[in-house]
Amino acid sequence: MDYKAAFSTALEQIHAEGRYRVFADLKRHRGQFPRATWTREDGVSSDVIVWCSNDYLGQGQNPVVLDAMHQAIDEAGAGSGGTRNISGTTHYHVELEAELADLHGKEAALLFTSGYVSNEASLSTLYKILPGLIMFSDELNHNSMISGIRAGKREQRRVFRHNDLAHLEELLMQVPLDAPKVIAFESVYSMDGDITDMRAMVALAKTYNAMTYLDEVHAVGMYGPRGAGVAERDGVMDQIDIIEGTLAKGFGVMGGYIAADAVIVDAIRSYADGFIFTTSIPPALAAGAVASIRYLKDHNEIRIAHQERAAALKARLTKAGLPVMPSESHIVPVLVGDPVHCKMISDILLEEHGVYVQPINYPTVPRGTERLRFTPSPAHTDAMMDDLAQTLEMLWAHCNIKRVGGYAA
Amino acid sequence: MDYKAAFSTALEQIHAEGRYRVFADLKRHRGQFPRATWTREDGVSSDVIVWCSNDYLGQGQNPVVLDAMHQAIDEAGAGSGGTRNISGTTHYHVELEAELADLHGKEAALLFTSGYVSNEASLSTLYKILPGLIMFSDELNHNSMISGIRAGKREQRRVFRHNDLAHLEELLMQVPLDAPKVIAFESVYSMDGDITDMRAMVALAKTYNAMTYLDEVHAVGMYGPRGAGVAERDGVMDQIDIIEGTLAKGFGVMGGYIAADAVIVDAIRSYADGFIFTTSIPPALAAGAVASIRYLKDHNEIRIAHQERAAALKARLTKAGLPVMPSESHIVPVLVGDPVHCKMISDILLEEHGVYVQPINYPTVPRGTERLRFTPSPAHTDAMMDDLAQTLEMLWAHCNIKRVGGYAA
Repeated sequence: MDYKAAFSTALEQIHAEGRYRVFADLKRHRGQFPRATWTREDGVSSDVIVWCSNDYLGQGQNPVVLDAMHQAIDEAGAGSGGTRNISGTTHYHVELEAELADLHGKEAALLFTSGYVSNEASLSTLYKILPGLIMFSDELNHNSMISGIRAGKREQRRVFRHNDLAHLEELLMQVPLDAPKVIAFESVYSMDGDITDMRAMVALAKTYNAMTYLDEVHAVGMYGPRGAGVAERDGVMDQIDIIEGTLAKGFGVMGGYIAADAVIVDAIRSYADGFIFTTSIPPALAAGAVASIRYLKDHNEIRIAHQERAAALKARLTKAGLPVMPSESHIVPVLVGDPVHCKMISDILLEEHGVYVQPINYPTVPRGTERLRFTPSPAHTDAMMDDLAQTLEMLWAHCNIKRVGGYAA
Repeated sequence: MDYKAAFSTALEQIHAEGRYRVFADLKRHRGQFPRATWTREDGVSSDVIVWCSNDYLGQGQNPVVLDAMHQAIDEAGAGSGGTRNISGTTHYHVELEAELADLHGKEAALLFTSGYVSNEASLSTLYKILPGLIMFSDELNHNSMISGIRAGKREQRRVFRHNDLAHLEELLMQVPLDAPKVIAFESVYSMDGDITDMRAMVALAKTYNAMTYLDEVHAVGMYGPRGAGVAERDGVMDQIDIIEGTLAKGFGVMGGYIAADAVIVDAIRSYADGFIFTTSIPPALAAGAVASIRYLKDHNEIRIAHQERAAALKARLTKAGLPVMPSESHIVPVLVGDPVHCKMISDILLEEHGVYVQPINYPTVPRGTERLRFTPSPAHTDAMMDDLAQTLEMLWAHCNIKRVGGYAA
């Protein structure tokens, strides 16, 4: 057995499919986001504009957040020093969970080390708590949700077509009304930017006596009058059983969570391996997240600016004849449809135009739907957008890539 | 289907087994560790000494670490803003991976959001890369390793008795020599404090042409002349294929990693879902970890002090006639053997004696081996140890718990 050869073979396959990833070495500069410094592999640096960050609102440089982090480091030090049960529950964690429960109007919240872990650990644990559970999962759910859902046996899992509630209803009808059921879905789907019909989903869940598990990672901080997400915006937050979110995107820090009834949170807290057996997040991250959540509760004008910037970019790119995918959210995907082209355009943008936007290839999106995914923040200016539209228009012409109509085709 | 009742039932079971966990709300005070403030549920606070932190060396309050964190926040802000591939690779991450590769004398290293995720993601990904892989796993491996190993099919998994290399050899002999094999084990087992015979393990792996995957989370920073772990101490680091570690214990911050040949790291980087689909750690954590690793490379006297403190505590507790379990490391477990007793003693210690040590119950350890687990750091003084020994001796008499001989019985 030649192990090195096996690892090489696995890598060659990735290369052959044109989806080998090279990470861009970036340095953000506090207060100047979305500007950053990119360091090439040869050590040469240049200035770029970051167009693909999930720090959607620029909270990662909000002085209120940074001050809270500095203060927590000065007060309590670096790491938490343990799992939540073994010396790793600090006052900052307790405060953050109370803040999150309040944000979502729930009795309780539970903090995880990341959004990925919160989904994987919570969803997999529901099978332990609800014997015979049938899980209904949107086919475009995030990898972290799928990873949790796969903990169930094959016969416990039903996948419905993306945002197709008629299909979901068909599947629900095939299961006894008194069987335990969970519908797992997202509000904003991050790669397409479309949004679930929340009222219809909640009504369907009620009809079939199913619990709802909603991933709002691409919505918290950004939708709803206090930034609690799309469920808040659409007035159904109290009808969602478990809301899952992240502290790493709209809130600009790191960590994940769920919010729900106290008994649900307490049971997941008591059974979820991915929660129990890991060191809790550092006090500084918890403190920064609390500050960020509180700030965004009170600053709806940031959400208004954010939506305006997204609309402004969509308008510019559409006017330039680029294949903007029909997003309903702050996410602006532009279809390329080929992994090699996608990477090539992205490389040219970075190396020659100071535009940093990663190619989004398989496995993040299905093959054939490779795209560039722009995430304009309130800090992206009109001038930056004009430059971007002009550059893309030129590149699309240059590279002979499909334009308008290409998306539908 | 009454969902609330189902969650309540699950919780009642935890209560009935005496293993419902109440998290102690603590606030550490920078520079005063192991002292901390404990806040009761009624809001009343009191001073405690933390005896169960995994910030084993007190690096969580080392000014060198805190300064690096402050500086990174000032330079780059709060969160990284994305996955490693999508804008979340900062210069701090690149630097940290180089530092970790150097620490372990490997070509490359890969950073994960936690030690839990590094084990789960790396081990599960090995099945994807090595078709037909048979995984050999020590029965006391950490939950995060088991979680990754369970990604393989039943026939791909072999569990050997804890640290029983004769049993492991029996199992290895049953598999064709040319079949891909990985032996997954830990150096320091965290709940018993025993240490694997590294030379024998490496020799066995060589004989049967197996790869080695070594979890050093309870050893990095603490063993070996530069703090690279037990494999470094025992002179076999270059013979271990994949070394996994954490930044959250000896190094005092947060995050996990693997170090290995470049081709191994690159393949895991390219295939591991738990690595690909999650926001990278904040720049401040990466910067703090770099500072901590560098500091500990140069300060072997901290490791010497750490071992001396552990020996001092073991001597005191043994002299007091307490059932100290036979640990070979810095971990000092004292057997109780019953979850209700274990929790009761821990509660009395916290409420009446200012001693914070969590009861370690199932599922963290097997039922019947419930224990108190002390982790003396270089900052725990002789006076603290004298007080602790005296208090425990009194409690053991008071509660009529088994003393010497109880462990073996």
